[in-house]
Amino acid sequence: MSIEDNIRKVVPYVPGEQPQKKVIKLNTNECPYPPSPKVIKALEEADWGRLRLYPDPKSEALNEAIAWHYGVESSQVFTGVGSDDVLSMLFLTFFAGDKPILFPDITYSFYDVWAEVYRIPYQTRALKEDFATDPADYYGENGGVVIANPNAPTGIYEGLSFITDILDHNKDSVVIVDEAYIDFGGETALPLIKQYDNLIVVRTTSKSRALAGMRIGYCFGNERLIKYLNDVKYSINSYTMNYPAIIAGKASMEDTEYFLETVNRVKQTRSETGEKLRELGFTFPDSQTNFIFAKPPEPFEAKDVFERLKEAGIYVRHFNKPRIKDYLRISIGTDDEMMMLINTLKGLLKRK
Amino acid sequence: MSIEDNIRKVVPYVPGEQPQKKVIKLNTNECPYPPSPKVIKALEEADWGRLRLYPDPKSEALNEAIAWHYGVESSQVFTGVGSDDVLSMLFLTFFAGDKPILFPDITYSFYDVWAEVYRIPYQTRALKEDFATDPADYYGENGGVVIANPNAPTGIYEGLSFITDILDHNKDSVVIVDEAYIDFGGETALPLIKQYDNLIVVRTTSKSRALAGMRIGYCFGNERLIKYLNDVKYSINSYTMNYPAIIAGKASMEDTEYFLETVNRVKQTRSETGEKLRELGFTFPDSQTNFIFAKPPEPFEAKDVFERLKEAGIYVRHFNKPRIKDYLRISIGTDDEMMMLINTLKGLLKRK
Repeated sequence: MSIEDNIRKVVPYVPGEQPQKKVIKLNTNECPYPPSPKVIKALEEADWGRLRLYPDPKSEALNEAIAWHYGVESSQVFTGVGSDDVLSMLFLTFFAGDKPILFPDITYSFYDVWAEVYRIPYQTRALKEDFATDPADYYGENGGVVIANPNAPTGIYEGLSFITDILDHNKDSVVIVDEAYIDFGGETALPLIKQYDNLIVVRTTSKSRALAGMRIGYCFGNERLIKYLNDVKYSINSYTMNYPAIIAGKASMEDTEYFLETVNRVKQTRSETGEKLRELGFTFPDSQTNFIFAKPPEPFEAKDVFERLKEAGIYVRHFNKPRIKDYLRISIGTDDEMMMLINTLKGLLKRK
Repeated sequence: MSIEDNIRKVVPYVPGEQPQKKVIKLNTNECPYPPSPKVIKALEEADWGRLRLYPDPKSEALNEAIAWHYGVESSQVFTGVGSDDVLSMLFLTFFAGDKPILFPDITYSFYDVWAEVYRIPYQTRALKEDFATDPADYYGENGGVVIANPNAPTGIYEGLSFITDILDHNKDSVVIVDEAYIDFGGETALPLIKQYDNLIVVRTTSKSRALAGMRIGYCFGNERLIKYLNDVKYSINSYTMNYPAIIAGKASMEDTEYFLETVNRVKQTRSETGEKLRELGFTFPDSQTNFIFAKPPEPFEAKDVFERLKEAGIYVRHFNKPRIKDYLRISIGTDDEMMMLINTLKGLLKRK
């Protein structure tokens, strides 16, 4: 026997690069605009002497602000250190059975990583040729279902009837709908938590609320599910949300005007960038997110374009995986950043 | 089958109360003094617009400041959302075998909670009558060993020869030494990570560095163990340390003078409080922590004194558990707070 025998060996998720030098960063779907001025004010007025005390383990001020903003009860809200923390807790809490959980073959690439680390059996279901999701793939007995809607990295949104179809066929499983990008398009499944006691809807402040650096994710579900989730959370870390996260998240929820303005600017830029990419011969599914999942025109290869953009100081994301290796995931930046991208692409596509 | 079959059901850890009203709070071993002025300056000068970006997933600035302060390599450092997050990751990473892990029957009451939530087999070893730990209890095959030194809630520190004894008898297991309170007394096992490739030493900024509200814990081990730990961390949450935690933690590590001054004040107050408690007839083991684990004089019962103190607005901690139900864990506050405590106790002990 040796130490090695007791070590949990895993292949971790690899996040998009966080380059330290000055680049145009279109690789991790961050918001190109700063957080709400109300968030910045809350942090500037914070009482840092208070840091000597533990934060509220229930992060009530934050949970109540979220509940208020979305018109639900705070007992239906759970917060974590980014939606990754929330999703990780959801996997650990609700997928403790022996039956395989189901999710698409092309989706957020953390799902299989969580399944592996927590030793949860899982099966993937292939998206259709056009990256659409077939709800029938999620009928039949399973240990749980995870659907990102809009999906990543495809950017495709499936309507609410798609979600209710999956919910109706999975009364005995928890269905997680990961809505990290819902603010950029599509209709949320949130109101369905009243009707479906097996639904969890996951959100994040990292994209539409420009708080990636603060790590605040949250989810909604009926009180019973949230109670089970809290029991597991309190079995791992009593205090996950630190003091600045609680006050910043609260202030963000209280500034709907700035939030909507920012999201609309991103959507406008997405629309304009889409047009220009099409003019250059790129093809892509309609995006309801803050990124475009685009295939360069023949004979250009995505991997090659990815590397040349990087040389030019523009970071986008390329997944070297079957079915999606011909695509680039391009986050929507400011208008200036997207103009730089388009101009650089024009140069690259000419050269061959 | 139902949703219930797939739910991980656990009995969570219950943290000390975080009362919202104004009380004398001696129940969660927080520091009575604010964080270093350098920490507050770093937060006041923070670039909050930067929150739109993800934080550095490696939290290198923080890890390097920790490595610099302790004279180790940053590849020997791992940081997490409080030492609870660090310990939780350690349990998940290094205790993945079938053999039971070992820890004392009286110790930090989160150890068995983590073992339960991660379904790690465990056995406890009874402390001696005087709450001392017998190293021989940790000889023989096991899946890992966890020792808090100084121990909580007893406050007792065992010497380094006790630690090396356990390490020498456990070459095939990872030994975690939880040094949450080491800054208040005793000699750290940290230098031993060079000699012992099975040792992990855990620390926190929550007690001696007055950063409980920021949630920053860390641990040290050889590069190979830290690598395995990071693999699991990156399989759960890419970005655990938010931007304020990184800059505040770094600033704290850079202010050794304030840190030592604060710790010395707490030790001085502990010594004076100890004397006064003894005068009142309390008995307690010698504390090397920022709390005193004290038994009220006969015929007074700890639970009763706990409740009466609470009525008087003074919160201490009482564990309603076998062997320790006759004790109160009293955090060391300011001199004024301890005077209030002593005076209140005098009144209470007269009444009967």
